[in-house]
Amino acid sequence: MKFTVDRAVLLKALAHVQSVVERRNTIPILANVLLEARDDALRLTATDMEIAIVEEVPGVQVARAGRITAPAATLYEIVRKLPDGARVEFDQSGDAPLALRAGRFATSLMVLPVDEFPSMTEGKLPHQFALPAAVLRNLIDRTRFAISTEETRYYLNGIYLHTTEAEGRPVLRAVATDGHRLARVEVDLPEGAAGMPGVIVPRKTVAELRKLAEDVGGEDPIQVALSDTKIRFSFGTVNLTSKLIDGTFPEYERVIPRGNDRVLRVGKKEFSEAVGRVAAISSERSRPVKLALARHHLLLSAASPEQGQAQEELDSDSVSYDAGPLEIGFQARYLNDITDQIAEQVEFRFADGSAPTIVTDAARPEALYVLMPMRV
Amino acid sequence: MKFTVDRAVLLKALAHVQSVVERRNTIPILANVLLEARDDALRLTATDMEIAIVEEVPGVQVARAGRITAPAATLYEIVRKLPDGARVEFDQSGDAPLALRAGRFATSLMVLPVDEFPSMTEGKLPHQFALPAAVLRNLIDRTRFAISTEETRYYLNGIYLHTTEAEGRPVLRAVATDGHRLARVEVDLPEGAAGMPGVIVPRKTVAELRKLAEDVGGEDPIQVALSDTKIRFSFGTVNLTSKLIDGTFPEYERVIPRGNDRVLRVGKKEFSEAVGRVAAISSERSRPVKLALARHHLLLSAASPEQGQAQEELDSDSVSYDAGPLEIGFQARYLNDITDQIAEQVEFRFADGSAPTIVTDAARPEALYVLMPMRV
Repeated sequence: MKFTVDRAVLLKALAHVQSVVERRNTIPILANVLLEARDDALRLTATDMEIAIVEEVPGVQVARAGRITAPAATLYEIVRKLPDGARVEFDQSGDAPLALRAGRFATSLMVLPVDEFPSMTEGKLPHQFALPAAVLRNLIDRTRFAISTEETRYYLNGIYLHTTEAEGRPVLRAVATDGHRLARVEVDLPEGAAGMPGVIVPRKTVAELRKLAEDVGGEDPIQVALSDTKIRFSFGTVNLTSKLIDGTFPEYERVIPRGNDRVLRVGKKEFSEAVGRVAAISSERSRPVKLALARHHLLLSAASPEQGQAQEELDSDSVSYDAGPLEIGFQARYLNDITDQIAEQVEFRFADGSAPTIVTDAARPEALYVLMPMRV
Repeated sequence: MKFTVDRAVLLKALAHVQSVVERRNTIPILANVLLEARDDALRLTATDMEIAIVEEVPGVQVARAGRITAPAATLYEIVRKLPDGARVEFDQSGDAPLALRAGRFATSLMVLPVDEFPSMTEGKLPHQFALPAAVLRNLIDRTRFAISTEETRYYLNGIYLHTTEAEGRPVLRAVATDGHRLARVEVDLPEGAAGMPGVIVPRKTVAELRKLAEDVGGEDPIQVALSDTKIRFSFGTVNLTSKLIDGTFPEYERVIPRGNDRVLRVGKKEFSEAVGRVAAISSERSRPVKLALARHHLLLSAASPEQGQAQEELDSDSVSYDAGPLEIGFQARYLNDITDQIAEQVEFRFADGSAPTIVTDAARPEALYVLMPMRV
């Protein structure tokens, strides 16, 4: 294998693929990146056995085709430290170390044979559709914060992606919950998605995908292909394939209350800043912020036995509420995780002070959040 | 106590003083900041019993003079989250909580009595002098990285500040060492410093002082006053008083070699970037970077049994060396801690491959570094 490549394009691709490599590895080959050079292209692959990221690096001058694996983190660190504008030469044969040269810098990196590198066979991925990058990013951003981190509830450790009907029209829906809050976002069913199974996309896959998709133009399509056990996201020169969580997502519709009829609308900025201020009274996460509602009036408060108490009033300048008096408490971080996803106006729908509450963006009802209250 | 103050000036002062408060405190009063309002000024004090920071906040409207202590971190968090431009009202009497209001936000913070707050009596500070802020920052920046973190060698856990003679003229000198490297920087003896005792300024004091002095104009004087046991730095509205380390700094001059006559001059940028690249081959800090010198030629290299090896050549474009061949190894981070303080041209003076090496900035000889080699 022998090729030359611009440092900048190589660095970008290496940054993408090496991200999936776990820093502490008991299996040496998993610390490596697979390099495959042929036909004026370089293909990089890294995997943690659950996720594989493959990226094509175009415009590579391949003098001799070949394949080898080398330490991903070290290669990335070295390429990162090469000067801007450097041309990097790679040369490797047989079991010999991988020689890399750039100007007067040279390194030889230990290699491991390609046949030890785990290949993630995708099998058939019969269900295929495309989503604009901005739409996929939105599905992720508006649900991922609610993913459970409790490993014993492994079936909640991801985003549940499935098809259903909403008000009579077919939709693709993303749902995440940790038992304390639930996030549900939907988009019109993309062509090709009908008939797909409901799948749970693992937390790490969601995080890697979100990073990879960061710079993709909003209208650019991200291709999604999936089976019962695997999912693949493809865009530009990048390919991410992941195993799915083998479990059953709970029947979440049962926890979404139907009869909540006390409606509060409040300016997002005023509300979330006030929540931040009153919550500052306590460094304990589990302390609730209390919402005391009266007609067009909201009093937020929080207390800590050691520090004292804090409160802030919001009135009809930013609050619209026309139902009876109500007191209810929520964890501040949970409130702000949700309001972070809301543009201007937050809509709460309460039943009473101890029942699950619905939160939506008044202007974008395609996202719905359910929040369990805390005792106050 | 009753006063109003602009959020912005209060926030700046609180940020300064609360920085010294330890996050985990077994003594409750040490988590508090002392507020003293009188004569249209507010005085804030925080301490960890070793260091006390006092800041005057001018332009405060005091309606009723008084003093109280309140939780520093909570107060800071709350003021930080108040809106830009807010006026903040404080009101407190007797044992009652401290009431703070800003617009529609209100908090009452638990207080502790002023007489429990440890006052750091300075005693007499008979030695007094002034240094321009830029000079003091330089003394700190060019030595602090060499301060030892080994708690058993407590007498090395700070910067040794003392007077001496350098080439026949009196100087104020700052020295720090951890046994692997030594940093020595001097400035012309400021007026008033003659006769002061040598003192060891603790690491945390150095860090707090450096933060406080960050925004001070370079020519603005920082007043220094000290005794055998305490030191005080004053500038603008800020006052930092600290205990000194009660120990004897070693006779460091003995470890500064005199006869090193092999001189290498190398461009700082080329050298430090090449060190970074070759060191990237290993994530183990203790792996040395090897310097192999020949006439006007430097080969930097590093190796890791798991990862491979890396090297970079520097030649007469950036290297000037006219002595015999030499091989010597140093820890990469130690090299870069020093070159970070050097502007353009690094000067090494070697004896041989196993002896302490002297490093200086070819253009600024007032700073001198000694570096112990590693076996390569």
